Amino acid sequence: MSEIQATKITWHEGTVRPEERRALLKQTGATLWFTGLSGSGKSTLAVALEQVLIQRGHAAYVLDGDNIRFGLNAGPKILMDTRGYSETQAKRFGLAFSAEDREENIRRIGEVAKLFADSGLLALTSFISPYRKDRDAARKIHESNKAGAIPFIEIYVSTAIDVCEQRDPKGLYKQARDAVAAGKGMGFTGVDDPYEAPVNPELTIDTGKYSTAEGVAMILEYLASKGLVNA
Amino acid sequence: MSEIQATKITWHEGTVRPEERRALLKQTGATLWFTGLSGSGKSTLAVALEQVLIQRGHAAYVLDGDNIRFGLNAGPKILMDTRGYSETQAKRFGLAFSAEDREENIRRIGEVAKLFADSGLLALTSFISPYRKDRDAARKIHESNKAGAIPFIEIYVSTAIDVCEQRDPKGLYKQARDAVAAGKGMGFTGVDDPYEAPVNPELTIDTGKYSTAEGVAMILEYLASKGLVNA
Repeated sequence: MSEIQATKITWHEGTVRPEERRALLKQTGATLWFTGLSGSGKSTLAVALEQVLIQRGHAAYVLDGDNIRFGLNAGPKILMDTRGYSETQAKRFGLAFSAEDREENIRRIGEVAKLFADSGLLALTSFISPYRKDRDAARKIHESNKAGAIPFIEIYVSTAIDVCEQRDPKGLYKQARDAVAAGKGMGFTGVDDPYEAPVNPELTIDTGKYSTAEGVAMILEYLASKGLVNA
Repeated sequence: MSEIQATKITWHEGTVRPEERRALLKQTGATLWFTGLSGSGKSTLAVALEQVLIQRGHAAYVLDGDNIRFGLNAGPKILMDTRGYSETQAKRFGLAFSAEDREENIRRIGEVAKLFADSGLLALTSFISPYRKDRDAARKIHESNKAGAIPFIEIYVSTAIDVCEQRDPKGLYKQARDAVAAGKGMGFTGVDDPYEAPVNPELTIDTGKYSTAEGVAMILEYLASKGLVNA
């Protein structure tokens, strides 16, 4: 049975070529890197864009706190509870919120986004990613990809902090302000930790001025102008 | 301009549903986990299968040493050289070959494969993954996925060690035998570190007995029988 089927199977040396993937998926794999303050509207935009892309026949996937922080970049406690890691092992590999841990968090996300984009998908990442150096490193691994540069599109969600703070959907700004008032730092971006705005982002969207639908339209227009999706 | 485009954009609350992804990609996302000794033919099978799947219109992607060990699971030296990590930071997050590091290596790969499968792709992982516990943990995160269980297909590439050792494409068995003869362990699977064969793999393929084309045909047959790809 298998031997008969097997006669129909052919393949070439080496891995699948990027142009074969593009032909199948009818799109060019790319990473759309959303960056901005907590409450700026990154995830709202990314999730809406993902849906609209899929409705239009494009393969897309959002990487965000929901699917990363409980899995790939879980903290020590989750690694102990769900994986049976020893305390030493969990503290070593689990990610908390120190500067080093945040850097490693963004490094791993950049690497995974690159794998998705290399597979031909549109990877949408939605993380504050406050440090320019870390975002630039993510860009670099895309642009220096061995099999050919992968488009990296930095989308700065530039919503002003007072607008973000009014929304405060998770009550985090209030918590951070209270912590600072009580003389305890929380290392919260925009309050007692810096947000380094992108210098040359591919797109800037202020969700205090534009609706989600408008923001999504701006991104689609950009992608079409670069030939990454159908117009 | 964007405002006019924006009127055509609609989306629903929450993230994309698995059935929407299935409808777009005309397949069910799943992980095909190849396991077996060094030289058993895992990567040859995975790479050939990926090509044949893509020829047939299925989105698939191989995760293997080539795209993982230099990126997501890089060792300390790469993290220092390419990311500017301090030595302490690089030793903490970089993966070497101790038991703990190998466990974390497979853990991260399992998490990334799950993300790929969740996005609707067929994720093909090609790693020795010698420990049953680590493979079972990878299976568990697929089967306990919040948005619904994701198929996890363990493919045991059961080629006998003497066949693998005759092939020895990278000269690793020779190196390991020499190290053991010289009284220095190398922790090499099958030589001085155990390979724990799967107990209930979905498929078993001995590449000493079957050609690559036959092996690929067996896997395609299995996938079609489960409705994961077109027959």
